[in-house]
Amino acid sequence: MPDPSLLETFATPTDSPFLIEHTHEEFTSVCPKTGHPDFGEIILRYVPAATCVELKSLKLYFQSFRNEGIFYEAVTNTIRDDLVASLHPEWLQIVTKWHGRGGIRSRIFATHGDVPAEWKRG
Amino acid sequence: MPDPSLLETFATPTDSPFLIEHTHEEFTSVCPKTGHPDFGEIILRYVPAATCVELKSLKLYFQSFRNEGIFYEAVTNTIRDDLVASLHPEWLQIVTKWHGRGGIRSRIFATHGDVPAEWKRG
Amino acid sequence: MPDPSLLETFATPTDSPFLIEHTHEEFTSVCPKTGHPDFGEIILRYVPAATCVELKSLKLYFQSFRNEGIFYEAVTNTIRDDLVASLHPEWLQIVTKWHGRGGIRSRIFATHGDVPAEWKRG
Amino acid sequence: MPDPSLLETFATPTDSPFLIEHTHEEFTSVCPKTGHPDFGEIILRYVPAATCVELKSLKLYFQSFRNEGIFYEAVTNTIRDDLVASLHPEWLQIVTKWHGRGGIRSRIFATHGDVPAEWKRG
Amino acid sequence: MPDPSLLETFATPTDSPFLIEHTHEEFTSVCPKTGHPDFGEIILRYVPAATCVELKSLKLYFQSFRNEGIFYEAVTNTIRDDLVASLHPEWLQIVTKWHGRGGIRSRIFATHGDVPAEWKRG
Amino acid sequence: MPDPSLLETFATPTDSPFLIEHTHEEFTSVCPKTGHPDFGEIILRYVPAATCVELKSLKLYFQSFRNEGIFYEAVTNTIRDDLVASLHPEWLQIVTKWHGRGGIRSRIFATHGDVPAEWKRG
Amino acid sequence: MPDPSLLETFATPTDSPFLIEHTHEEFTSVCPKTGHPDFGEIILRYVPAATCVELKSLKLYFQSFRNEGIFYEAVTNTIRDDLVASLHPEWLQIVTKWHGRGGIRSRIFATHGDVPAEWKRG
Amino acid sequence: MPDPSLLETFATPTDSPFLIEHTHEEFTSVCPKTGHPDFGEIILRYVPAATCVELKSLKLYFQSFRNEGIFYEAVTNTIRDDLVASLHPEWLQIVTKWHGRGGIRSRIFATHGDVPAEWKRG
Amino acid sequence: MPDPSLLETFATPTDSPFLIEHTHEEFTSVCPKTGHPDFGEIILRYVPAATCVELKSLKLYFQSFRNEGIFYEAVTNTIRDDLVASLHPEWLQIVTKWHGRGGIRSRIFATHGDVPAEWKRG
Amino acid sequence: MPDPSLLETFATPTDSPFLIEHTHEEFTSVCPKTGHPDFGEIILRYVPAATCVELKSLKLYFQSFRNEGIFYEAVTNTIRDDLVASLHPEWLQIVTKWHGRGGIRSRIFATHGDVPAEWKRG
Repeated sequence: MPDPSLLETFATPTDSPFLIEHTHEEFTSVCPKTGHPDFGEIILRYVPAATCVELKSLKLYFQSFRNEGIFYEAVTNTIRDDLVASLHPEWLQIVTKWHGRGGIRSRIFATHGDVPAEWKRG
Repeated sequence: MPDPSLLETFATPTDSPFLIEHTHEEFTSVCPKTGHPDFGEIILRYVPAATCVELKSLKLYFQSFRNEGIFYEAVTNTIRDDLVASLHPEWLQIVTKWHGRGGIRSRIFATHGDVPAEWKRG
Repeated sequence: MPDPSLLETFATPTDSPFLIEHTHEEFTSVCPKTGHPDFGEIILRYVPAATCVELKSLKLYFQSFRNEGIFYEAVTNTIRDDLVASLHPEWLQIVTKWHGRGGIRSRIFATHGDVPAEWKRG
Repeated sequence: MPDPSLLETFATPTDSPFLIEHTHEEFTSVCPKTGHPDFGEIILRYVPAATCVELKSLKLYFQSFRNEGIFYEAVTNTIRDDLVASLHPEWLQIVTKWHGRGGIRSRIFATHGDVPAEWKRG
Repeated sequence: MPDPSLLETFATPTDSPFLIEHTHEEFTSVCPKTGHPDFGEIILRYVPAATCVELKSLKLYFQSFRNEGIFYEAVTNTIRDDLVASLHPEWLQIVTKWHGRGGIRSRIFATHGDVPAEWKRG
Repeated sequence: MPDPSLLETFATPTDSPFLIEHTHEEFTSVCPKTGHPDFGEIILRYVPAATCVELKSLKLYFQSFRNEGIFYEAVTNTIRDDLVASLHPEWLQIVTKWHGRGGIRSRIFATHGDVPAEWKRG
Repeated sequence: MPDPSLLETFATPTDSPFLIEHTHEEFTSVCPKTGHPDFGEIILRYVPAATCVELKSLKLYFQSFRNEGIFYEAVTNTIRDDLVASLHPEWLQIVTKWHGRGGIRSRIFATHGDVPAEWKRG
Repeated sequence: MPDPSLLETFATPTDSPFLIEHTHEEFTSVCPKTGHPDFGEIILRYVPAATCVELKSLKLYFQSFRNEGIFYEAVTNTIRDDLVASLHPEWLQIVTKWHGRGGIRSRIFATHGDVPAEWKRG
Repeated sequence: MPDPSLLETFATPTDSPFLIEHTHEEFTSVCPKTGHPDFGEIILRYVPAATCVELKSLKLYFQSFRNEGIFYEAVTNTIRDDLVASLHPEWLQIVTKWHGRGGIRSRIFATHGDVPAEWKRG
Repeated sequence: MPDPSLLETFATPTDSPFLIEHTHEEFTSVCPKTGHPDFGEIILRYVPAATCVELKSLKLYFQSFRNEGIFYEAVTNTIRDDLVASLHPEWLQIVTKWHGRGGIRSRIFATHGDVPAEWKRG
């Protein structure tokens, strides 16, 4: 099941603010209602404070949802909360995009902190 | 290993502010965790003060990362810091875009100074 | 683990030859060497004899590979062999297309019987 | 339920052979297994003998499948058989293309008679 | 109503065989069943014998269908027959493509004579 | 008026057969029926024998049609015949493509000699 | 330097012939003339005999060229020869595509054995 | 002026036949009639015999045309002849594509030897 | 001739402001100068007050221009005025786009009332 | 030579302000320096006062430049001035876009009056 203890961090290599984006295109979990697998994409964007998330540990953390029965909305908020607890970032945003089910495609957006000025201007 | 002494500069040929963008699509370094090579693209944008970076020396500087074990975040900030130290620019931005690893694609954005008005309006 | 007993069939609704193609874009199994999940797309094309495969049972059969450690090549041939054993079709083709791993994308093609004339002409 | 008596014909306006293609993008029927609606596209191609199918009657015939529980394969062959019985054409081909269900997209191809030379060369 | 006497011809300016294609994107006639206007595109291809069709007269001939109640199939064959009677060409092909009606798009293909070798090879 | 004496040639610089294609996108002449200008594109392809056409003289030759009242079909065959008379090529093909007039777009294809094997295979 | 002993194989999981394609987009070696890095893509296609190449070992084998000074042509033929020696396949094809150098982009094609019928028809 | 002595070769690294393609997008020479610069792209394809052309020397050879007044046709055949004299290849093809001049774009195709079977099938 | 009495309305089903857009791609009328048919596309956008236009009646109203000799500018303003008289909308915009005639394509924009804030920003 | 007396007008069919755009893609004149033809596109946009320009007369006016030796800049301003003198519009804009000559493509913009608010917002 989702295991935030898998998340490893390393010291942010600079005091200057900067922005990181990781896009994971192979997320899968299980629908708690039908038992069928769900497939989606997870976008993580953040401005680090003292620590950054190590990439391989992030992959293992995402893989820990593989056989978990969990709704899209809970996936999105769980990932945000686990990463905020682990990284204490200045700002963090999770966007999840899900494959169609019954003719419906979904996207969920969850944020922690204020959008940095640089990201606002696109 | 990354060698900022490779960077050569020449005198900026004008007093009027202007903006330079160099895009390098063949960056490679090594993952410090797995030992496998990483591949990415480096975008350098800056408004010069007294000096500009010479293009062939910039290529050799980028190539000096080839066998270095270093995280994406450190690559991005190291390049920003080395170029700021060498050029003392009005403004400088490094964007790195990395090939997928374990199903995760990444981008990192690091900036020095205030975004010039001309770049803001796109 | 892969369970061909999940496959259900129904009587082919006509004696005239015809051709069926099912494309499954959400296949996942596990790499037997690294333990990491693999993701891919499965294309099944066949000319039925007496029976056709029921679509929901096909989905459940594909899902039974979810936690199986198995190479791409074995996935492709196992699916071909299980469906040939279940359907005894006139012709059947499996094409699998796999997401990148370590910078390598793969496709595998496996066939049973002779390509029907109508499919040859595209 | 599917009602071939809705099909109306008119006399083919020439003795010279020619080829007709009608593409219907708004077909819907019901899955007999899950009770959920299916959506697809029907392509009808034929070389008429003595009669052609009238277009509005064809639309009404397609609409008569709206609340019918029927597999993709049976839809395809039923349409082919009803139109062959109604038109006695020289050649007739039905291609059906179905929206994704459970991550699986499908196409079915059914034919009556030999492909005319002109269609073969594209 | 459709008036082939509008068609004017001029002497083919060479004895060497050559191929002509005219594409008319603004064809309109009226559905004989519903009274609503139909819209489509007419493609005329031919290898002339002694005469070619004059382009402005061809436009006027196409415009003469404007308020005629006539099926797609009859439009296609009438145009072929009128042009064959007027031009006695070596080869002639009419392709008509019709806008959607009731969710159905149509194409009709009618030919006179054998496809010339040069057109076959595309 | 069209003036083939404008065409200049130079000695083919090799005995080995080779193929030349010139595409002129700014052709204009005048409709002999309406007096309005026509606009089109001329594609010339040929395998030279002893002489090649000089490019600037070709442009001047094409410009000599500027105020000539002449049908599309005659333009195409006149250019073919003038170039064949001037170059005595192994093979030569003229394709003309004309802007829309009265909602009709046209293309004309005229050839001299047999299509060379290399061009056939594309 | 290129090390074919890195290549590992596993027993082909079926006696029926099938076709495998691996595309590696992150190949890099060094130009033996200038010392600068080269970047390219390697496509491997083969019909296996008794053994298949294991994917992670293939990646490590490709990575062993990283600091080797070697021409494009030698890269292509070395990979073909090493894989033929390791796999003894029915058919094998290597296509390499190289980034631009001095304004020149290159592709190299090397093959072992006869193209299988199924691949020929695309 | 064009200097074939710039071409350097190296020994073909294998006895097995293979195919090489180099595409140079930055070719420029001078029109001998107008004195204006011409710009184009040169594609070289060949099956080597005992020697291959070294890439940097090929670039320098192409650059030696920069201030030469020479027709497109002569450029194409000169390059073919110089490379055939230098490489004695099994098969060699030069395709040149030229920017518009006076509204005319050109392509020239020149070949030495028979097209290899593998290239024919594309 | 254009007949606004064909327009039927129904009561707007809400008091909240909202925006409606209808695009008709099959408009045809007749040029009053040449007698030849014109073809175009009509875009109607409006924010309703108490009534909305019924869609089938709108189609019949558009069809009533079919044999009317009328300039583009008058078509555009007539439609705007007839719909404003029928609907008394908060805001209404007509955009007409016309097929080329004599090498000239046209668009006409006519508006009633102030552009709503929501339309301005998107 | 350019003949503004060819321009015909008709009374604007409404008192409400509206905007008209005509795009002419077949403009040709002659370069006064070289005598060679120029080709371009003319875009006319205006908000009429009491009169609108009749489309066929506009085409004839554009055609009157066909054999005139005149620079791009003079074409653009002549057309603006002639149309302003003929129409006395609220606002009028001419944009000319010219085919490449000697590797240079050009656009010219000329305006009369203030840009209307509706056009400003795109």
